[in-house]
Amino acid sequence: MIALEQASPTPARRRRLIPVSDAPFRLTLDRRPGAPPLYRQIYTSLRAAILAGALADDARLPPERELATALGVNRTTVMRAFGELAADGLVVGRPGWGTRVRAAPAGAGTPNGATNAALPREHVWLLGLPSIGHGRLGPDIAILRDIAAGHRHADMISFAEGTPGHDLIPVQAIRQSLDRALGGVGAAGLSYAPVEGLASLRCAIAGRLAVQGVKASPDEVMVVHGATQGIALLAQTLIEPGDAVVVEAPTYLGALQTFAGAGARLIGLPVDEQGLRVDALESVLARHRVLFIFVQPDLHNPTGATLSPARRERLLWLSRRHGVPIVEDQAYGELGHAPPASVPLKSADRSGLVITIGTISKTLAPGLRVGWVVAPAPLIGRLALARQFADLSGGTLAQLAISDMLTSGFYERHLASIRLAYGERCAAMLAAVGTTPSLQLSFRPHGGFYLLCRLRDGHSARLVAAAALRAGVAVLAGEPFYPPAERGREDGRDRLRLSFAGATPPAIAEGIARLAGVLDRLPPGTAADPSLRSLQPLV
Amino acid sequence: MIALEQASPTPARRRRLIPVSDAPFRLTLDRRPGAPPLYRQIYTSLRAAILAGALADDARLPPERELATALGVNRTTVMRAFGELAADGLVVGRPGWGTRVRAAPAGAGTPNGATNAALPREHVWLLGLPSIGHGRLGPDIAILRDIAAGHRHADMISFAEGTPGHDLIPVQAIRQSLDRALGGVGAAGLSYAPVEGLASLRCAIAGRLAVQGVKASPDEVMVVHGATQGIALLAQTLIEPGDAVVVEAPTYLGALQTFAGAGARLIGLPVDEQGLRVDALESVLARHRVLFIFVQPDLHNPTGATLSPARRERLLWLSRRHGVPIVEDQAYGELGHAPPASVPLKSADRSGLVITIGTISKTLAPGLRVGWVVAPAPLIGRLALARQFADLSGGTLAQLAISDMLTSGFYERHLASIRLAYGERCAAMLAAVGTTPSLQLSFRPHGGFYLLCRLRDGHSARLVAAAALRAGVAVLAGEPFYPPAERGREDGRDRLRLSFAGATPPAIAEGIARLAGVLDRLPPGTAADPSLRSLQPLV
Repeated sequence: MIALEQASPTPARRRRLIPVSDAPFRLTLDRRPGAPPLYRQIYTSLRAAILAGALADDARLPPERELATALGVNRTTVMRAFGELAADGLVVGRPGWGTRVRAAPAGAGTPNGATNAALPREHVWLLGLPSIGHGRLGPDIAILRDIAAGHRHADMISFAEGTPGHDLIPVQAIRQSLDRALGGVGAAGLSYAPVEGLASLRCAIAGRLAVQGVKASPDEVMVVHGATQGIALLAQTLIEPGDAVVVEAPTYLGALQTFAGAGARLIGLPVDEQGLRVDALESVLARHRVLFIFVQPDLHNPTGATLSPARRERLLWLSRRHGVPIVEDQAYGELGHAPPASVPLKSADRSGLVITIGTISKTLAPGLRVGWVVAPAPLIGRLALARQFADLSGGTLAQLAISDMLTSGFYERHLASIRLAYGERCAAMLAAVGTTPSLQLSFRPHGGFYLLCRLRDGHSARLVAAAALRAGVAVLAGEPFYPPAERGREDGRDRLRLSFAGATPPAIAEGIARLAGVLDRLPPGTAADPSLRSLQPLV
Repeated sequence: MIALEQASPTPARRRRLIPVSDAPFRLTLDRRPGAPPLYRQIYTSLRAAILAGALADDARLPPERELATALGVNRTTVMRAFGELAADGLVVGRPGWGTRVRAAPAGAGTPNGATNAALPREHVWLLGLPSIGHGRLGPDIAILRDIAAGHRHADMISFAEGTPGHDLIPVQAIRQSLDRALGGVGAAGLSYAPVEGLASLRCAIAGRLAVQGVKASPDEVMVVHGATQGIALLAQTLIEPGDAVVVEAPTYLGALQTFAGAGARLIGLPVDEQGLRVDALESVLARHRVLFIFVQPDLHNPTGATLSPARRERLLWLSRRHGVPIVEDQAYGELGHAPPASVPLKSADRSGLVITIGTISKTLAPGLRVGWVVAPAPLIGRLALARQFADLSGGTLAQLAISDMLTSGFYERHLASIRLAYGERCAAMLAAVGTTPSLQLSFRPHGGFYLLCRLRDGHSARLVAAAALRAGVAVLAGEPFYPPAERGREDGRDRLRLSFAGATPPAIAEGIARLAGVLDRLPPGTAADPSLRSLQPLV
């Protein structure tokens, strides 16, 4: 049974599915010899229905696969038909949003920047492909891609990216390590690496972890293509649709998207100055069957919070008691601005229930694409299998270079110098924010890359971010950092994440001044409006 | 309803699922305060059932998730119980094979090298994790990982890996390009790359493709982490479980595994000296709804065949006529040993239905992890979204270096020199195989890395591969290169794939002599036995 989704008059209400037999038109195909091609017949019928108003504006067409099965045709046939409609400007297809009717005449303003009308007709068959299962992610689905693309101009000051300051990336040391590595091993340094990573780097990471109090043998360490791949492989290996995963609210948005994309039910728990509210965790573990707890115990993104010793102990106890693993993301853990250095949760793990993800993307250089997962060896075996199917192996040369930097003493010296530099940048931003009454700091971080600020006067962070971009300063709205909230919960709609990592202290002062100017010019009533969500430009 | 799978007396018959109510024991839990932990109760019940023989040897335990739901417990509770059983040596868990009873006493020889008994007890909860959905892949699931791990010793001659000869990797040129790139752009060369790849490399690839007659704009080119990632992203974006995909039989085993892992129904079509048997395709397209056709039109792995001009034309016509896209893998396309250079199918594509995958892994160096997908821009957008979730972006520096080598003229000169060298290696192997009557060449390749040989006397290729490894020469059995065959079809069980890429002509002669010695020593009756499949060591 085919269902057509009709646009409901109240946007807030869930769209109603109506079976095709009740739908205002029927689609029948003429399969006799000499009849027009099937895709053409489907196109013609749907086109007539849209132009006659039988399919309302914004109605969602059935998924290609469903329609193809119901009509007994190849899915590519339906794709071509949808594609022709798109080329006519009558439907719009977006990944995760399905294919929707656009009955309004061209030029009347299609939201979401739909550009289908400009698509060359020979490519139209590609429009109707199935989404990649991230439908629930909504308008922020491509946010990381957009951030990575870095829409910047010369005078832009960016507080948006989670990238190390370019002046703090040790270019010469990396250059020398790469060259030394290649000179030493030759062609072997350019051949395939083992899927789990080069043995020398796995040893070097285990050695570095030992300094932090974590006992892990090299076969419990797997090298991955950045922490993002570690999170993706864990999600792919562990999560089945419907599984409950506890996350901090807010947390790293890439993890939220990846877990949601894998079908997890996200349970968000609040974060305060002492980190995850572990007291709230206890009742969640009692009421839900939780697959794992994802936490950033040290210098949390986006708040900078660090989990207190008492909460760490309680968290580990709860994990053991309920047999629920912890996945800790230590992307920023080594970036405390002042001693004492923080220590991963895993250092106190005596039950084998803590999995640690680390990376050199924030400390050395993200473009080398090296991170790691520390987990019991049987899980490493499964992650390696998943990686074999994903991309076979990592870049050999970068692994050699990082192994060199970790073991030569360079890494430790470099950390000491960037901790100071990021501390100065953080202080500069704290000072500037302190003199901007319209920005309220959530709490004062002691490391990492970010401040999370609340906007006074109920301003919408998305509106502010869009206006700030026009004023020459890039910031991120807080909402994508929060799991979909229950009604009434904090959802980041009035928060901004500001990264101090990429700009020097004077540029930070100038950028916050630009942002303050934007906030001053906004009328107080520009409150967050749910209906504006999908219309805000992505930063 | 929980089902326990009983070992069937006839291995060839499908295992029978019996509902738990008919099973020879019941599992009930005591939830009163003071009762033993739930995982312990599950462990104790199952242990007793196994030791009492109520669960037969090789019976499959229900999936953790199913059992957890039925018992109303957390999945990790079931995982721990299964893990305890594994630590006792009573069950064996393998990805894709589920958890199976091993009632035989320890030391009685567990097949498949199960090592669970050695697993530390604190890690046991990890044993019962769900498989990653590749259950249908059988014993070869980890073959690429094992090949990449390269179990070699000093005197081993390897014809197994699809890796360029180390002496043919241009180490100095790559070293210079990396250094020049980093010197030129500094920290920007070590920051995040755009998800779709660096603009300069996308342009350089589009330029290289233009030389081969392919018209593609840079926004139709996406840089990926090796061709494997290109295949994985396409599978993830295009395939829904049950979709039919046409493949060559044989073909690249990584593609077979990835498509099968995504749930595709693989339809294998034979390959002869002229490439894919396009005549067989026509009736398949008429009878099945095919999602896409995966083909290696040039210097095919593992046969070296190149699709004839007449078949190319027919293939493109059939693709247009049925609206079925073609995915062409051009990993070896530039490695023809003598002119004329081959030209991708996409050069003759006028309907936007051909997607091309390319890589520098075979021509420059696999450890740089750079490949590309050429497709209409809307599909590139979807692939980029999938990649954002997989690993965010590629290695910046390698992209800069390859961009440099593609545009400086170096790549073209390098190709000319390695074509000659691989031609010599191919000739050396052809000569050696020609004097080995027990190896029958399928057909003579004109490029690429491989020969595919049939074993005379019905020898099992897996047995031969295992014996050859002991004799100091690594080869691959043919079976993993074939999609699961219908009864009576060619399935590679009597074939070997021999790579001539990694060894010099004298080493090739010596390696084939070792292989001939192994074959001479085998009694003629060592025929391929289906029941041996899962017992053969993986090479």
